Amino acid sequence: MKLATLADGSRDGRLLVVRRDLASACEAPGARTLQAALDDWDKVAPGLAATARDLAEGRVAGFPLRIEALMAPLPRAFGFIDSSVYLSHMERARALRGATLPDTFRQEPLISLRIAAPFLGPRAAVPPQAADAGIDLEAEIAVITGDVAAGTSSAGAAAQIRLVTLVNDISLRGVIAAETAAARSVYRGKIQAAMAPVAVTPDELGPYWTGRELRRAIAVDINGAPFGRPDAGRDAAFDFGEIIAYAASFRPLEAGTVVASGTVSNADASAGTACIAERRMIETRETGAAKTPYLAAGDRVRIDVMDDDGRSIFGAIEQVVGG
Amino acid sequence: MKLATLADGSRDGRLLVVRRDLASACEAPGARTLQAALDDWDKVAPGLAATARDLAEGRVAGFPLRIEALMAPLPRAFGFIDSSVYLSHMERARALRGATLPDTFRQEPLISLRIAAPFLGPRAAVPPQAADAGIDLEAEIAVITGDVAAGTSSAGAAAQIRLVTLVNDISLRGVIAAETAAARSVYRGKIQAAMAPVAVTPDELGPYWTGRELRRAIAVDINGAPFGRPDAGRDAAFDFGEIIAYAASFRPLEAGTVVASGTVSNADASAGTACIAERRMIETRETGAAKTPYLAAGDRVRIDVMDDDGRSIFGAIEQVVGG
Repeated sequence: MKLATLADGSRDGRLLVVRRDLASACEAPGARTLQAALDDWDKVAPGLAATARDLAEGRVAGFPLRIEALMAPLPRAFGFIDSSVYLSHMERARALRGATLPDTFRQEPLISLRIAAPFLGPRAAVPPQAADAGIDLEAEIAVITGDVAAGTSSAGAAAQIRLVTLVNDISLRGVIAAETAAARSVYRGKIQAAMAPVAVTPDELGPYWTGRELRRAIAVDINGAPFGRPDAGRDAAFDFGEIIAYAASFRPLEAGTVVASGTVSNADASAGTACIAERRMIETRETGAAKTPYLAAGDRVRIDVMDDDGRSIFGAIEQVVGG
Repeated sequence: MKLATLADGSRDGRLLVVRRDLASACEAPGARTLQAALDDWDKVAPGLAATARDLAEGRVAGFPLRIEALMAPLPRAFGFIDSSVYLSHMERARALRGATLPDTFRQEPLISLRIAAPFLGPRAAVPPQAADAGIDLEAEIAVITGDVAAGTSSAGAAAQIRLVTLVNDISLRGVIAAETAAARSVYRGKIQAAMAPVAVTPDELGPYWTGRELRRAIAVDINGAPFGRPDAGRDAAFDFGEIIAYAASFRPLEAGTVVASGTVSNADASAGTACIAERRMIETRETGAAKTPYLAAGDRVRIDVMDDDGRSIFGAIEQVVGG
């Protein structure tokens, strides 16, 4: 099934069950919000699934889904863990300064925490930033977990993946560069992330979901032109079961924790990249200078994942940069 | 007023108004949970304050408060930002390896994100850990914010401090050492933090609260013996207004964000320390070897802040190490 959250004036919105083609939706039974559903998933999910079937088979008419009226599927989360499993993204950055990746980056997933609330909705503008901020997108796959006990195995962690979605982990490259130069960890260089219109259960993804990762290309467009189509099913050093299990090594994770993959990136650069910084690294290596500018006011970003028939699975994140 | 959360089988518990002396309490009006109160503070807070007055003046009897029945005042938060404003804590660590603090540490507050849910209650055991984990306490002052807009000034940020409490930011020193040695950021070395029994509004703290920091010593006991009494009102390089404003430089913070000071530490070491690692640094500098062991199964930790009459302000965090 597919779930979304309607903006209703409240902080957590109103949970919707969405038809597979994203054309219509109805109010979810049994839980007012997605967090409430996640808190009591075993009890609530069967009713959500039944409603999804009713919607699919016409027994419930629903109402037309307006993406513009949606919040993030989970507007406020109790945890947002970003990883960085597509190592070619980091290898390209290090290669520029003649460095290689530490071996430990291949042995255990990297973890980077983010503020988990509020997530931006799928059509929210990127808040205006200073001219030298270096606004960049980062197109990522994300999962939303159930409760994960401390010490859970990667198989056990994979079984706790309740939903799959997309995030745009918006980065300020100029701010990150300043933080790194000052030997500070990255904090201010990461602003509010946006989430795709719907979150999708693993079973609904069928063959596109291995149980631990999404086997689809992520389509990034900037100002209406194709920018990158890297395949999320290739080149990940760790799958979501491994990321979650690592994050829960010594502490539990609460139901509703968002765990993201890091920027999708392939070793073969021909499919393009899922962020501007990585394209600039490739340009610098190939021509000696970065050519592609970071985002400026008015620029439009689109992130989407399609099925084999070209239909959007999660709905598209479409953001304009404010200013 | 003072607020606590009664364990009632739900994930967020039941909000209580607590009498100033912590002897009795009653169910809070207008909000079932602390997050609900924070979400709608201007509307809910007057009723909470009226109930606190009724409780203080005997118009409401309430019921005896059992600390053992409490969860953390905010069991699940949407953000947990730890800072590190008591620089003597870090200076001692660096002095051991002949290094000094980077100037930027004095120019802008350090920020370190933590998983914000679930917080442990004030009497919850520290979960059992491996023998070489190096379990340590970190006694800290924490505030809980209202909504903070991106770009808020430090004065504006200070005005958004809704509540003040204590946290024990439990650390695994052996795990942190391994993470640092592998050039990884600290993640697995921080496990679930515990929170004091009650959270207290700034007005209730009277002269102990400057509007931006707490002018009291934090009392740390281990196994019933005094361990440290550093003064939270001395030696902080940044106040809470400055920490929150820095954290909200380029992004908003959601109502209910927990912001902590980092381990309280004084430049004058005679008051002792608020964590074991720092005592071990002092021992190493003075005698060439660390003598005080980290915590082991069965060890008891107590963190408390008293008023001038020796009465506990927030109630004590009292944790035993499980095993």
